[in-house]
Amino acid sequence: MAAAIQPDLDLAAGLFDALRRETQRGRGIVRDSYGAGEQAAHDLARGAAAGIGLEISVDAIGNLSMTLPGRDRTARHIRMGSHLDSVPQGGNYDGAAGVVAGLAVLSGLRRAGYVPPCDLTVMAIRAEESAWFDIAYLGSAGAFGLLDPDCLSIARSDNGRTLEATLLEQGFDPAAIRERRRLLDPATIRAYLELHIEQGPTLVGQGLPAAAVTGIRGCKRFRNARCVGEYAHSGAVSRAYRHDAVAATVAFLHHMDAVWRDEEAAGADLVLTAGELYTDPAMHGPSKIAGETRFVLDIRSLADATMERVASEARAAAARIGQEYRVAIDLGGTSDSPPAAMDGRLRSRLAALLDRPFEMASGAGHDAAVFAKLGIPTGMVFVRNAHGSHNPDEAMALEDFAIGTRCLMGLLTDFPF
Amino acid sequence: MAAAIQPDLDLAAGLFDALRRETQRGRGIVRDSYGAGEQAAHDLARGAAAGIGLEISVDAIGNLSMTLPGRDRTARHIRMGSHLDSVPQGGNYDGAAGVVAGLAVLSGLRRAGYVPPCDLTVMAIRAEESAWFDIAYLGSAGAFGLLDPDCLSIARSDNGRTLEATLLEQGFDPAAIRERRRLLDPATIRAYLELHIEQGPTLVGQGLPAAAVTGIRGCKRFRNARCVGEYAHSGAVSRAYRHDAVAATVAFLHHMDAVWRDEEAAGADLVLTAGELYTDPAMHGPSKIAGETRFVLDIRSLADATMERVASEARAAAARIGQEYRVAIDLGGTSDSPPAAMDGRLRSRLAALLDRPFEMASGAGHDAAVFAKLGIPTGMVFVRNAHGSHNPDEAMALEDFAIGTRCLMGLLTDFPF
Repeated sequence: MAAAIQPDLDLAAGLFDALRRETQRGRGIVRDSYGAGEQAAHDLARGAAAGIGLEISVDAIGNLSMTLPGRDRTARHIRMGSHLDSVPQGGNYDGAAGVVAGLAVLSGLRRAGYVPPCDLTVMAIRAEESAWFDIAYLGSAGAFGLLDPDCLSIARSDNGRTLEATLLEQGFDPAAIRERRRLLDPATIRAYLELHIEQGPTLVGQGLPAAAVTGIRGCKRFRNARCVGEYAHSGAVSRAYRHDAVAATVAFLHHMDAVWRDEEAAGADLVLTAGELYTDPAMHGPSKIAGETRFVLDIRSLADATMERVASEARAAAARIGQEYRVAIDLGGTSDSPPAAMDGRLRSRLAALLDRPFEMASGAGHDAAVFAKLGIPTGMVFVRNAHGSHNPDEAMALEDFAIGTRCLMGLLTDFPF
Repeated sequence: MAAAIQPDLDLAAGLFDALRRETQRGRGIVRDSYGAGEQAAHDLARGAAAGIGLEISVDAIGNLSMTLPGRDRTARHIRMGSHLDSVPQGGNYDGAAGVVAGLAVLSGLRRAGYVPPCDLTVMAIRAEESAWFDIAYLGSAGAFGLLDPDCLSIARSDNGRTLEATLLEQGFDPAAIRERRRLLDPATIRAYLELHIEQGPTLVGQGLPAAAVTGIRGCKRFRNARCVGEYAHSGAVSRAYRHDAVAATVAFLHHMDAVWRDEEAAGADLVLTAGELYTDPAMHGPSKIAGETRFVLDIRSLADATMERVASEARAAAARIGQEYRVAIDLGGTSDSPPAAMDGRLRSRLAALLDRPFEMASGAGHDAAVFAKLGIPTGMVFVRNAHGSHNPDEAMALEDFAIGTRCLMGLLTDFPF
């Protein structure tokens, strides 16, 4: 039976085109969380859902649910989805592919006249990227009432408006977050499934179109690290008298690179990145010693213990190297998302549905992690994608997307209830 | 006789106050080369010179000469001076102290009715700082017809206007530079003397108010270095697949720090600084691997050979580390100013005029280097200054300035002709 029902790939192709057309700004895609770009994507998804004839609802914080009713409307439902926001100057597929896949599956089922045993819902989730509000999983964590209400005062990175003000402007209800209101009951969800592009080069390197995901790396991030020294003339101050913020930051980050190598050599799963690093353009100069740097240190692993160990070493190294260079390296606090394991049964079923079964860890965080950590059986499919993600050059072939989407379709039409 | 004539310190104190009042912007001083800030300082110097009764002239590119006529107007003259521009958010004394000292000396001589054997000229030099037009010594090198006419197309770092357009706007004549016109004949200058704040912490450390300068470090600067990798998701790309511009830049700069240590251990005179370093704010992000950095590498030494050796090693390391990290580190060209030695006789005479004679090298470049390299006997006096220079916290005590200025006065009234 599974082989008979195909996902609606024309709908998918049309949606990808429309998404690019509506949200491209310059070279890249900008679907700003709770902003015009994300809303444009939601409008497109909603329009497609209406065309398929799905039931549509929007929760208090803007998550969009699109449901194909099942035979038993009271049974626990299966939820598919992903987010529709993007990083600034991102690509067309990170997030959107999961929503489009869900709609392609439901459209295919609807066209085939297939009525599932339980409701099947596609969820277009809000604000997964932390680039805008410095917090990940706003939409999915908020749906389950899991957000710290303090997050309402976080300012959007580009325009400085708080999350609270932004939600109000968009017609949503910050009180849902303030009261930790549960908008979605985990007990009603039988399983959560998310298709996502692979954000690294593994599938390209392996020559494979898709994979089942084993788990999602957690993230521990020093988001607002800072090194403070003293501005001075670059020619006139000998090493012994310097308080050089760049020299100290460089020593610190190069040491952390060595820590990474050592952890890898010891077999730990780990990636370490300083993706932002800058002196102050209003104060720096070619003939000045820099008095300040700011940077981000992003630590990711499948193991909490590894992230803890590396963060501790970072704090110790910051103190030691700060003293050595006569500067203050203040790493600040971390924003944390713990690792999450995928459901064993769903994972092996998804892998088995691939022509060439392959399983791999996810280095990036996904909304699926929020569902998994609530004990909801969760599965993920990765689709091959060239040039990585979070950049304008994301490149996913529609044929690979079709293979990943058929994998979801196969699971749903032969669900291991 | 020397002891009888004192520099006019009231004039000096008044000028320093007025300079700060007129050119402070926020916390720091902004006397932008060939801009409103520098012009305000020139207007103040010119007003003071008029009050003293000096002869005043301005050359085709805006250098201001203020002359106390000597007995023999045809004899070679003695020139004192320094520049009146500052870096963005600089301090009140870097440059200005030398012009104020010259005026305090001439005012003191005038009040004492002293007529020197030859003309004594104070020169307020234009545009010494490279922060604005990415070229040092514009005013002094331009006065001698030494500038490459190509410099006329350099854009000012803050507003993008070319030097040529800026000169025209200010009422000066870019043709003087285009034709390499000599506005000042080195053969007419018997000596050049410059008082300047020390821009490092040595005199503070030694507890000394002033010093005679032995020589000026040259500078070899990679002004537009760049590392190009590839933007990617920070969690999803393992080390082997990364093209991380920050990791590579950090490895490169930390290596150069080690090169500096080795050179120092081998006894070389050297300072190395990366004063600007930044990822692209329009492209970077906390969950992105950085695809690009830009930075400056500033190499200074009293020895040309040392700078050459370090620049060669930098080029080799950039190639090697670029390959290791799968990125391209392009250091670009260098802007160079060779080192300059002070005149032996002037230098020891200046030192002898100090209560506690002390000699030291200048780590920073000065207009004095331009005069010295033309074979004009050149002497420099450093005045103690806390917190370094090129920052808003420059702190020179008027008592220390008085000691340095009396040293100039002593030399002039007992000149070793």
